[in-house]
Amino acid sequence: MNRYVRPNIAKMAGYVPGEQPQHAKFIKLNTNENPFPPSPKVAEAIRQFSAERLTRYPDPTAASFRTAAADRLGVPSDWILCGNGSDDILTICTRAFVGEGERVRFPTPSYILYRTLAEIQGARWEAVPFRADWGLGDDFGSSVGDLKLAYLPNPNSPSGTWIEPNRVLELAEMLPCPLIVDEAYADFTGDSCVSLVSRCEKMLVSRTLSKSYALAGLRFGFLVGQPSMIAELAKVKDSYNCDMISIAAATAAILDREWLAENVTRVVTLRESLADRLSHLGFDIVPSRANFVWCTHPERSPRALYEGLKERGILVRYMEYEGWGAGLRISVGTPEQQDVLLAMLAEIV
Amino acid sequence: MNRYVRPNIAKMAGYVPGEQPQHAKFIKLNTNENPFPPSPKVAEAIRQFSAERLTRYPDPTAASFRTAAADRLGVPSDWILCGNGSDDILTICTRAFVGEGERVRFPTPSYILYRTLAEIQGARWEAVPFRADWGLGDDFGSSVGDLKLAYLPNPNSPSGTWIEPNRVLELAEMLPCPLIVDEAYADFTGDSCVSLVSRCEKMLVSRTLSKSYALAGLRFGFLVGQPSMIAELAKVKDSYNCDMISIAAATAAILDREWLAENVTRVVTLRESLADRLSHLGFDIVPSRANFVWCTHPERSPRALYEGLKERGILVRYMEYEGWGAGLRISVGTPEQQDVLLAMLAEIV
Repeated sequence: MNRYVRPNIAKMAGYVPGEQPQHAKFIKLNTNENPFPPSPKVAEAIRQFSAERLTRYPDPTAASFRTAAADRLGVPSDWILCGNGSDDILTICTRAFVGEGERVRFPTPSYILYRTLAEIQGARWEAVPFRADWGLGDDFGSSVGDLKLAYLPNPNSPSGTWIEPNRVLELAEMLPCPLIVDEAYADFTGDSCVSLVSRCEKMLVSRTLSKSYALAGLRFGFLVGQPSMIAELAKVKDSYNCDMISIAAATAAILDREWLAENVTRVVTLRESLADRLSHLGFDIVPSRANFVWCTHPERSPRALYEGLKERGILVRYMEYEGWGAGLRISVGTPEQQDVLLAMLAEIV
Repeated sequence: MNRYVRPNIAKMAGYVPGEQPQHAKFIKLNTNENPFPPSPKVAEAIRQFSAERLTRYPDPTAASFRTAAADRLGVPSDWILCGNGSDDILTICTRAFVGEGERVRFPTPSYILYRTLAEIQGARWEAVPFRADWGLGDDFGSSVGDLKLAYLPNPNSPSGTWIEPNRVLELAEMLPCPLIVDEAYADFTGDSCVSLVSRCEKMLVSRTLSKSYALAGLRFGFLVGQPSMIAELAKVKDSYNCDMISIAAATAAILDREWLAENVTRVVTLRESLADRLSHLGFDIVPSRANFVWCTHPERSPRALYEGLKERGILVRYMEYEGWGAGLRISVGTPEQQDVLLAMLAEIV
């Protein structure tokens, strides 16, 4: 046991991200990356970037990106805070709002990072179960004295389910603390809580370019909130948290609306096909609004299916939630990848 | 007053980095950036980077960089933790070691970010004055029960002074907690504490590519520590804190040892020339081991000099330390920039 680190750090296991094999050739459907390459405008922005500029520090406010994102989202640019991926945004919010021993809340089963963020901060956490229909009851909005932050992934992972924005607003209004609506997958729904931020100071919406913009490797995310919140959160971020190349590439990406619309259409079509074909193989699937499908099989253990696929060169995400159960979260792949996946599954089930 | 953020955040002013004008044309000698462009190998790595790869997450361990850095530094690669700039490294260490209400220590005058990191964490801080010769007495190593982390910039900013590694080791051994030796400028000294890390678990050495590698815009830094420390700190970092392009570019940079040696020689030569010429203008200067010079003038206020230079299109860093005084920190520039600076100063003083 390391005697120098805080006890909360020493005793935690640490977040384990989905497998990222760096060399072996897998069909990789385990971390909800986009199956297609990013906008050609991104490649162009990187190609045109002059490395000589790197000798200077980047713009600490990432103004060029904020202007472009503000225009796309219909909010002023001082309602936007940029981050080194939306993980950075979630970290900044946790550090700004939650003191040691105070409490955070998130639904379960959902994104497992929220618990890790609470553990790093030395905070307590409360997991509110989704209802059987993947909705949330009023208990998610209930007031507890030391509750300082609530996280709500929408669409949710692993289920891919969606809570209507008006219901999210109701929950935000009930809560005694800020609510971060984690919209990592929202571009795939065609809907968002961004337009509700102006109606409730407590509502914060985080977005990422990792999924719908196919830029997981770039690390770029952002938060939309009222300026009174953004100004406080800016104190907590590292001054230069976004580098020059990623600001240039992310700006190019968000300006290419046509690419986004086409990519979302392709991914959604493939998701529907994936869900149908999994159903035909006897899987129980949850209707998804994201770029992945959550499924279980009435006769096969998800662990055995995960391992069977891995042996055949296909990575999907096996997830197990204490007191709830396990399942497979399968990311949308290219048509060819999905054909291989389904063929392999047909052998195993 | 925002009622949702922690009181320590609400009451803090927030770190103010050196001015980074994004459009106006200044001769910029205020944030210790390298006056020369980075290695051509960096430009090549960026040019050869395929944007299609960005659809995947980066390697969370940045193994390619760690292997290259381990080879350069003569330590095993599991002694290295990569960060999104060394600010990220300093943040990770603060979060891992220091609980709310616990204490950190740093010398003064030194890097003003350390205090900000303590404030964000809700920690207390203790500033130990440098002696008149810019050495540190044994009080810097004294044991206090709730002291959880000490920071020591070496070379120091703003003074550019250097404490011999053996003295740093003595201080580390006295301290009850880890000591981060912040070696942002160490490449300009030709010396380092890295080789002492194996002799003391408490000694951690942070490095950045922002200064000697001319890559401030890239955001890449790293920490050298014993594996028992690195493993704990890895739990606190964001999983994907370094993006793919910066890993590729940073790896290319650290492999180009010839470029580094030449750049350091050029910068050190220019620093000596800058110091000499400032002396001739009547400035009191502190002999520097970094890429900047700290100076005061017996008859002119540093504030007036800073403003006079800014009016003339030259940015230097005006710094004022409570209970200690003020001065100018002037970064090494190109020969042409230094000529303009000295000509302007000759007009003002």
